[in-house]
Amino acid sequence: MHEVDLDKYDLRTDLIIEQNIDNIKNNSYDENGVHVDDIILKKNNNLNKKQGKYVTISYSDITDSNNFKNVLEILEKEFYKVLKYCKIKKDDSCLIIGLGNRKIISDSLGSKTIDEVIVTRHLYKMGDVDKNYRNVSILEPNVIGVTGIDSYEIIENVIKEIKPDFIICIDSLCAMNIERLNKTIQITSSGITPGSGIGNTKKELSKDTLKIPTIAVGIPSVVNTSVIVSDTINYILKKIGYLKNNINNNKDKLKPVNKINYLKELNDLSSIEKKEVLGYIGLLDNDSLKKLIWEVLSPINADMIVTTKDIDFIMEKNAKLIGTALNNILHNFN
Amino acid sequence: MHEVDLDKYDLRTDLIIEQNIDNIKNNSYDENGVHVDDIILKKNNNLNKKQGKYVTISYSDITDSNNFKNVLEILEKEFYKVLKYCKIKKDDSCLIIGLGNRKIISDSLGSKTIDEVIVTRHLYKMGDVDKNYRNVSILEPNVIGVTGIDSYEIIENVIKEIKPDFIICIDSLCAMNIERLNKTIQITSSGITPGSGIGNTKKELSKDTLKIPTIAVGIPSVVNTSVIVSDTINYILKKIGYLKNNINNNKDKLKPVNKINYLKELNDLSSIEKKEVLGYIGLLDNDSLKKLIWEVLSPINADMIVTTKDIDFIMEKNAKLIGTALNNILHNFN
Amino acid sequence: MHEVDLDKYDLRTDLIIEQNIDNIKNNSYDENGVHVDDIILKKNNNLNKKQGKYVTISYSDITDSNNFKNVLEILEKEFYKVLKYCKIKKDDSCLIIGLGNRKIISDSLGSKTIDEVIVTRHLYKMGDVDKNYRNVSILEPNVIGVTGIDSYEIIENVIKEIKPDFIICIDSLCAMNIERLNKTIQITSSGITPGSGIGNTKKELSKDTLKIPTIAVGIPSVVNTSVIVSDTINYILKKIGYLKNNINNNKDKLKPVNKINYLKELNDLSSIEKKEVLGYIGLLDNDSLKKLIWEVLSPINADMIVTTKDIDFIMEKNAKLIGTALNNILHNFN
Amino acid sequence: MHEVDLDKYDLRTDLIIEQNIDNIKNNSYDENGVHVDDIILKKNNNLNKKQGKYVTISYSDITDSNNFKNVLEILEKEFYKVLKYCKIKKDDSCLIIGLGNRKIISDSLGSKTIDEVIVTRHLYKMGDVDKNYRNVSILEPNVIGVTGIDSYEIIENVIKEIKPDFIICIDSLCAMNIERLNKTIQITSSGITPGSGIGNTKKELSKDTLKIPTIAVGIPSVVNTSVIVSDTINYILKKIGYLKNNINNNKDKLKPVNKINYLKELNDLSSIEKKEVLGYIGLLDNDSLKKLIWEVLSPINADMIVTTKDIDFIMEKNAKLIGTALNNILHNFN
Repeated sequence: MHEVDLDKYDLRTDLIIEQNIDNIKNNSYDENGVHVDDIILKKNNNLNKKQGKYVTISYSDITDSNNFKNVLEILEKEFYKVLKYCKIKKDDSCLIIGLGNRKIISDSLGSKTIDEVIVTRHLYKMGDVDKNYRNVSILEPNVIGVTGIDSYEIIENVIKEIKPDFIICIDSLCAMNIERLNKTIQITSSGITPGSGIGNTKKELSKDTLKIPTIAVGIPSVVNTSVIVSDTINYILKKIGYLKNNINNNKDKLKPVNKINYLKELNDLSSIEKKEVLGYIGLLDNDSLKKLIWEVLSPINADMIVTTKDIDFIMEKNAKLIGTALNNILHNFN
Repeated sequence: MHEVDLDKYDLRTDLIIEQNIDNIKNNSYDENGVHVDDIILKKNNNLNKKQGKYVTISYSDITDSNNFKNVLEILEKEFYKVLKYCKIKKDDSCLIIGLGNRKIISDSLGSKTIDEVIVTRHLYKMGDVDKNYRNVSILEPNVIGVTGIDSYEIIENVIKEIKPDFIICIDSLCAMNIERLNKTIQITSSGITPGSGIGNTKKELSKDTLKIPTIAVGIPSVVNTSVIVSDTINYILKKIGYLKNNINNNKDKLKPVNKINYLKELNDLSSIEKKEVLGYIGLLDNDSLKKLIWEVLSPINADMIVTTKDIDFIMEKNAKLIGTALNNILHNFN
Repeated sequence: MHEVDLDKYDLRTDLIIEQNIDNIKNNSYDENGVHVDDIILKKNNNLNKKQGKYVTISYSDITDSNNFKNVLEILEKEFYKVLKYCKIKKDDSCLIIGLGNRKIISDSLGSKTIDEVIVTRHLYKMGDVDKNYRNVSILEPNVIGVTGIDSYEIIENVIKEIKPDFIICIDSLCAMNIERLNKTIQITSSGITPGSGIGNTKKELSKDTLKIPTIAVGIPSVVNTSVIVSDTINYILKKIGYLKNNINNNKDKLKPVNKINYLKELNDLSSIEKKEVLGYIGLLDNDSLKKLIWEVLSPINADMIVTTKDIDFIMEKNAKLIGTALNNILHNFN
Repeated sequence: MHEVDLDKYDLRTDLIIEQNIDNIKNNSYDENGVHVDDIILKKNNNLNKKQGKYVTISYSDITDSNNFKNVLEILEKEFYKVLKYCKIKKDDSCLIIGLGNRKIISDSLGSKTIDEVIVTRHLYKMGDVDKNYRNVSILEPNVIGVTGIDSYEIIENVIKEIKPDFIICIDSLCAMNIERLNKTIQITSSGITPGSGIGNTKKELSKDTLKIPTIAVGIPSVVNTSVIVSDTINYILKKIGYLKNNINNNKDKLKPVNKINYLKELNDLSSIEKKEVLGYIGLLDNDSLKKLIWEVLSPINADMIVTTKDIDFIMEKNAKLIGTALNNILHNFN
């Protein structure tokens, strides 16, 4: 097919887990229905990502209060390990930065999370604080499209003034996989570039640029329509593969067709079979498929960033989850 | 392929314009970049829709203030015609019902629109109102999942009490076409079934059930991921068709690939070509394609209802648009 | 002085506790810093109030989480007694009505409380509910100034349709005493007249009018400036009385003047002393004083209903308190 | 009476107009029901206020759309004069700072106003802006009690980075007079000390500290209960004075007692009469009266900052008023 300049479209992911990381996992485990992947990236790694510790917590739901508690417990445990990895001490002061735009719900994880945080820096300035509480302050720089000021310009200068020992940035992320929407938390010691998931070029917030440990936490809450389509085309092939291999399999006989999770087994089709089912499209590799779909959707303005219908409700839960974890691990830290 | 019970999934549309209506258009016109289609459906029509007048106003944007004014002007003109069609008189009292759920932004068109309406019924009860103002009241029944009460139960009984001469229902709709999201207003004299676009079974609000003229107004603000995918698969075929027919066409030489609107021309592929490009999938008719995609997405919980990332901002504009039109045509009515 | 028509102004209180009830208290107690007064009024009582059980819970603060728990515990215990008094049974269905106006924070207790309630009526309609959950639905009729429809008109007709066994009405109240603002909960079996605290004439919601037990719960969140002034004039006399009796009292020597709570003792001045301190004003009885102040403030539009600066924050706590109590006592009821 | 340390309580006003300024008015006029007072204060003035231009615009209502237009027109005219006084040029870049706390409605004028402002600085950075639009950015530092960071610390450092030519600060003010609540706009070239109206000690935002012209705009939206009471006690004396002088005056015979505006005439009582009416209290000068009332209210926690019940609605109008004026005079500036 014709060539596309890869730089013209930007379907990057904010999530390390969506890259090919099978060989570099440091540690993975399952607990109470929650899955954790821990990765340590070295400098100049193949993923072209910054070095550091990346923890990915995957789960199916936090709207149920039991699931919420299970995810919270693991989030606190893993967050604590990231603080240790960054050599954060009990008395280190922390600035928590809520990135994104409070008025766009799908982009409000940062703003809504810092609303939950127990703030103490002003009490420290007045003296006489219960020492179980860490020195914590918050900042909501908002986005340049609203304020006319790059969030980096605000953050860099406020840090110069208040000199926190480390910072934690919270942001809504962009997923490259519809199954991860609001079902994954990523914590990383490598910082974040605000807006990096949706194709803007902004300055990086990291230890390299800010000279203090810079931890980033995010949950993917938006996805590109191109991603939805290319995911689905791959699923079509997997579903057909499953059906082919299970056509005479009695176990599915009584199940409704929409209850059979065909992804649980590997049932890859041969190239000939793929061509049979999906023509030339079935033979494209993932990158070429995404390029094609982007070329199909963008001329008709259908290459949109979308979010789930009930994002208002879920974002409240997401912010409560991270805010509670931050209060529990920053204050009363041992 | 295997069979699917059509009733098991519900990818219905709230929009008449998304059905095959080419032969039954009453009137269509373009004005200031806005397109209007006016349809009168008779009883027992082929579309299996209720009889009545259906006006569809299509536009590309209302976030620009000039476009907003252009759409508003046409909306008022067309709404006035629907009132005339329903034989509404200057002195008839009106109850405006904001359907949907205020707390889910994508479902809040009804609630946010009635916030804009000038309400006068209580002034009429006290006597001595400027007669240029119609007797108008509003009602926000909310959704059964929040209140435990079917909106129909509330509406039916409030109407019995306050006896309006006619009602106008405002609701967020579900689109079956990604291009229509927040870019179409439908006004109909045939009423509405709340939640009908997303597969719930609820009672119809219409002249048949409520015994007074029941006008419904809506803007589609959510879409199903299955719809996004099946639309895109069709666009792939159209794009390939366009490329085939224009491969040596100099007019596109200097255009970037993502700026060529391939939908403007008809370039259908032959069946053999479709099979070449998209295999068996390319040969499916629209209904079978949607069924297949639903079967692929629903077992893995990826059959989601989504909305655009900036829905917060757009919903404000949508509500302002309809609310302003309602105030202008209901009050000072000639 | 000149005469005033008592009906011309309306400085009524929603709180039974602000009336002269010393002789008719059924039961009073203190527990964990919370004070409870329980009154049973008979028909044709001297207070000119409807018969029934009136429970008043007084406290100094619920913004502290320990105080919140203490008040919640007593609220649940007392609310349970009111349900028993009204002969509510384990299986009786309940409609909870959030009165007031969501968009005026000081009037939003009803709306914000029902946001917290676990709703089940729709699940009962579908069958198969865990029987520990009572059949509960909610209704938010809003105020006539916003909707054009009297809340009574909506409530009466919805009750006819859904036939709950009893109702609970939640509303923001008007205090006649600045010390009670956001520091008192009143629960009564006698119902409520929406807006009765601020001088509107509306229909009563009660067992007499609705034919089912009608419990009302409220917290005072606004107060009239006239009340603030007449309270203060009385406090001036009490403070002077205290100072006169304690002028040589060593116990206050080291206390800052603004830390001595002079209300804790009775130090009434004689009429001659009152006239000395406050002239003729000092001799007015309470009703005449309030009339005078109303006559002074209303011609210059300074007779305002005010609320505390931090009402946004406190209203969240108030709604959380009542909502949590309702969930705990309605569901899992023994 | 006993002595009070004046520093112990702080009933300061943010409004120059509430001080004794009769001799120093530069210019005053009435237009369309709006009153304007223009004052130029020199260094080391008797009011102990910073030098500069102070414009006070007084009106009775902006909830009516005609009144809104009248006030807006005068606000723009007077704001323009302040810009001229500060020697602001057509091309000067402006940073608009929304002070206060978005989540406390009575303190949200700053936040809500900047929501209305047309922001362009990011477009200037990208080049190619319509030169009728000034370079404008916004900043919302929030309050130290929420963020742990003094707003001054944020503002000072952001200014160092983005180097605006001048700044405009918007804040909710504290009134010392109940009649001024939401009925006065003050514009001054002398800057502002955030929170100065309610007794906190914070750093001043002004040309002296920030080295660039610093204009402050505010509307009083809260008042102290002490102020309400001392105002009313003064009104009592004025009302009695009016009644004494008009007891046989036929003009009031048919007017209801609460419709006679007794403030319009000067009817001062003699000292003997004051003592007759209000005892010793009637003889106190204004400062001693306020001290006394503060001493009466603060020991019983009734010395509260209050706001009007409908502040939610009025704050929207206030923000719309100032935001619209800013857009009209900053952009398209001649």
